[in-house]
Amino acid sequence: MKKYQVVGVGNAMVDVISHAAEAFLAGAGVQKGIMQLIDMPRAVDLYSRIGPAEEISGGSAANTIAGIAHLGGRTAYVGKVKDDQLGAIFAHDLRALGAVYETPLAPKGEGQETGRCIILVTPDGERSMNTYLGWSEHLSPADIDVGQMGQAEWIYLEGYRFDGPDSHEAFAKAIKACKSGGGRVSLTLSDPFCVERHRDAFRKIIRDDVDLLFANRAEIMSMYQTDDFHAAMAAAAAEVAIVACTESEKGAHVLAEGQHWHVPAIPTDIVDATGAGDLFAGAFLWGLTNGHDLQTCGRMGCIAASEVISHLGARPQADLRALFVKHGVLSARG
Amino acid sequence: MKKYQVVGVGNAMVDVISHAAEAFLAGAGVQKGIMQLIDMPRAVDLYSRIGPAEEISGGSAANTIAGIAHLGGRTAYVGKVKDDQLGAIFAHDLRALGAVYETPLAPKGEGQETGRCIILVTPDGERSMNTYLGWSEHLSPADIDVGQMGQAEWIYLEGYRFDGPDSHEAFAKAIKACKSGGGRVSLTLSDPFCVERHRDAFRKIIRDDVDLLFANRAEIMSMYQTDDFHAAMAAAAAEVAIVACTESEKGAHVLAEGQHWHVPAIPTDIVDATGAGDLFAGAFLWGLTNGHDLQTCGRMGCIAASEVISHLGARPQADLRALFVKHGVLSARG
Repeated sequence: MKKYQVVGVGNAMVDVISHAAEAFLAGAGVQKGIMQLIDMPRAVDLYSRIGPAEEISGGSAANTIAGIAHLGGRTAYVGKVKDDQLGAIFAHDLRALGAVYETPLAPKGEGQETGRCIILVTPDGERSMNTYLGWSEHLSPADIDVGQMGQAEWIYLEGYRFDGPDSHEAFAKAIKACKSGGGRVSLTLSDPFCVERHRDAFRKIIRDDVDLLFANRAEIMSMYQTDDFHAAMAAAAAEVAIVACTESEKGAHVLAEGQHWHVPAIPTDIVDATGAGDLFAGAFLWGLTNGHDLQTCGRMGCIAASEVISHLGARPQADLRALFVKHGVLSARG
Repeated sequence: MKKYQVVGVGNAMVDVISHAAEAFLAGAGVQKGIMQLIDMPRAVDLYSRIGPAEEISGGSAANTIAGIAHLGGRTAYVGKVKDDQLGAIFAHDLRALGAVYETPLAPKGEGQETGRCIILVTPDGERSMNTYLGWSEHLSPADIDVGQMGQAEWIYLEGYRFDGPDSHEAFAKAIKACKSGGGRVSLTLSDPFCVERHRDAFRKIIRDDVDLLFANRAEIMSMYQTDDFHAAMAAAAAEVAIVACTESEKGAHVLAEGQHWHVPAIPTDIVDATGAGDLFAGAFLWGLTNGHDLQTCGRMGCIAASEVISHLGARPQADLRALFVKHGVLSARG
């Protein structure tokens, strides 16, 4: 048995979550529903204009790893924060779930701080993300522990992490170490505009290395530059062993072994859509590495996604195992 | 018209809120249901043992002021944080509501950080508070702006702030400036063990200066050293013009002008009891300074308290004005 079921690599950050009216987004120049990168002056200005906020650890792959750890999976995370208060919060919240998090903290002092994502949640539950990467963008090959990657059944790579220097090399190092140890590689495309920025790099690792691709409808259509969702999924399935593609309230699609399973979403009142894809991936990977079939993994993903969008914040609050049992995808002993 | 309806003075801090089982409290040496002061090593140790947390601005009087600001009241807050990330969060969350917060930040560097309260919420919704005062304990007379206090209809003094040096002098300065400007003085007893620590000091300002006393059942009985709740309220009413005393699910009592009004609580599923007393006081003071009668002020207090205990965190999330209208204590235009 390998030490880790999943090791995730991504942008480490704390979410700053606030409610906002639709009109506020337009007035503040925030594009709705996507992730936009911002610098520190913009972060300071935007923060000064938003309402009271709550701080909850975030980061896309970190949310995925938190979900796996919450489910009791053996998991680790790699991503950079600084030795500041937000960095301590981020590290605590992963470790408190039992995830291994050993990435060295960037030292105290002036300069960039721990990354944060100012998330504005509109009344429809949609989230508009404004990301100051801070220290997370300095993840470099030196931060990749080849021993750790070699002990992973799966590594999980966050597409957002392609923004910033050294990330491609760090991913290449992680992939090589993982594959050398007999592990497999999963990637999430993260965001349609992230795909726009890094399509060629994504394309290369998808073709060469990725065994499991996570995406949503907009991302996969952007990836394959088509308006035909099913054509995009088919194109992905031709390149990758397993494709898991979410489609919001229409549920998710799993394509593998020449088959296509559709899994319905769990109806929920959406409070905050943040983390839906992250928790889908976390539950899917937990199911996969616990020997569940792909359709069941997809159902687990949809259940976890429905939990995380029912409250503010992108980390699970309810007992996901109990929800799996309730929905009949896990036995009470399982 | 005075510039401020209410100016609050208290311990400025950010809450670190986590769920915990009853057994955890005993194992970690946390006394249930009260506020206990802890030092930094204890804060670090306890934090390392608790589950994932959410960070939401807190501080008892700051929650009260946040409630008044949320309702549209003209209000200001005095309390010390440091120029660190938690300090920035605290300042933002007050200012974002429209409250004036001008207390100078303690400079960056080594030494104490912004105060925080590790709040463990048990399945019954009770909160057990572990407070590292940090910079908040250094509030001194120099931080009291006599001009600001003189422009307040009411000042609101937090009993917790009696823990730590210089606080008595700071309060004396605030009281004098407020009374010189024709304002009135309110005080909250904060916690039964806080009353134990500072009974004589509380007694003196209650007799000499306080026009409106906020307390709960345990606090007022501790204050007057009796097991007879009604005797304790009567003793307080003999010393103070208005006594507003909460009694959890039994509602609240208002004693003034020789009368005693009982106000029922609003039935609610308790998620997190933190801030019930703080928001009671905030809504009561908002009602009072907007010309509502004392019984209505008590009803507003109970409505606001019921809102804040229905979710995690001690700041209002729902629209309190809308709730007042719904419960018939405010006209739709009001």
